[in-house]
Amino acid sequence: MNAKPENPPQPAAAVEDSFPQTFREVFRRHAAGVAILTVNYGGRPYGFTATSVASLSAEPPRFTFNMSRTSSSWPAVANSTYLGVHMLGLENRELAERFARTKDRFSGDHWETGPCGVPLLKDVPAYLVGRIELRLSFENNAIVVVDVVDGSLGEEKAPLLYHSGSYVRPYPLEYEI
Amino acid sequence: MNAKPENPPQPAAAVEDSFPQTFREVFRRHAAGVAILTVNYGGRPYGFTATSVASLSAEPPRFTFNMSRTSSSWPAVANSTYLGVHMLGLENRELAERFARTKDRFSGDHWETGPCGVPLLKDVPAYLVGRIELRLSFENNAIVVVDVVDGSLGEEKAPLLYHSGSYVRPYPLEYEI
Repeated sequence: MNAKPENPPQPAAAVEDSFPQTFREVFRRHAAGVAILTVNYGGRPYGFTATSVASLSAEPPRFTFNMSRTSSSWPAVANSTYLGVHMLGLENRELAERFARTKDRFSGDHWETGPCGVPLLKDVPAYLVGRIELRLSFENNAIVVVDVVDGSLGEEKAPLLYHSGSYVRPYPLEYEI
Repeated sequence: MNAKPENPPQPAAAVEDSFPQTFREVFRRHAAGVAILTVNYGGRPYGFTATSVASLSAEPPRFTFNMSRTSSSWPAVANSTYLGVHMLGLENRELAERFARTKDRFSGDHWETGPCGVPLLKDVPAYLVGRIELRLSFENNAIVVVDVVDGSLGEEKAPLLYHSGSYVRPYPLEYEI
């Protein structure tokens, strides 16, 4: 498949069977910043890595993210009032992998309890704490809208990015590599 | 402000006045992939650059984006049924700037009419065409949910990223620069 004019896109019917695969590949090509979301649910910390965090408005400060309702973290997000989001830097890559692939996410001193009881990860470039305003379910997935109530900036560092199944770093356009 | 444990975050009250500015800085530190959204409204093409596009689910294929309702493109998005999203590559940087900063976005042969009448930009790494399922307004902003009905992959190229007010490219973590 090719988007060039001399190779017009195939009609939907022709690609229907494999379309979810095409859709996944389209989003593999869409790079994203990496964040970790955390909640305190029943006195226990929960958290997971996400690449869908997006600003909704600065005034009032509000953001969104999307997640699967089949995720092990969904019951915690579904039943908690407050939530933390951490924007990750390059130095947080191990944290990103730990919160994406392992189950043992909070053993250690890499976090502390923050405002509104939310688990806060240390040494991240920035974090926000917010109140979950809305969870909007679409079949097995949900959009979550969060009203920010607190937050802070850490040391500014290069951000951690995710693209095509790998973690990457940003590089200026002006310099050829 | 500093997220390190020896400098605990200031309480919300102390930063209240400047909080929208802190929020903006938090999202400046969150890098994002760059996309252009397009619609055909009343026979005219509309489009704009966005950094909030996120996958919601692959089955069914569905994505979201956030936008300001004060945007000049909002009436077109508010009143159209179908919409296109184009994932941009490095070579599309001029297109990204044109659809973010200028008003003359469709003069030229860089686009054609695609499925469901949606304006399709040529020579992009990937695009999707979808039906707008929901527009959810939060004061001056909106979350838009799109059910994908078509789409195609172009030539795979390095993605265009946006971080801290600049366009950047991805670079592997494994190599020191």
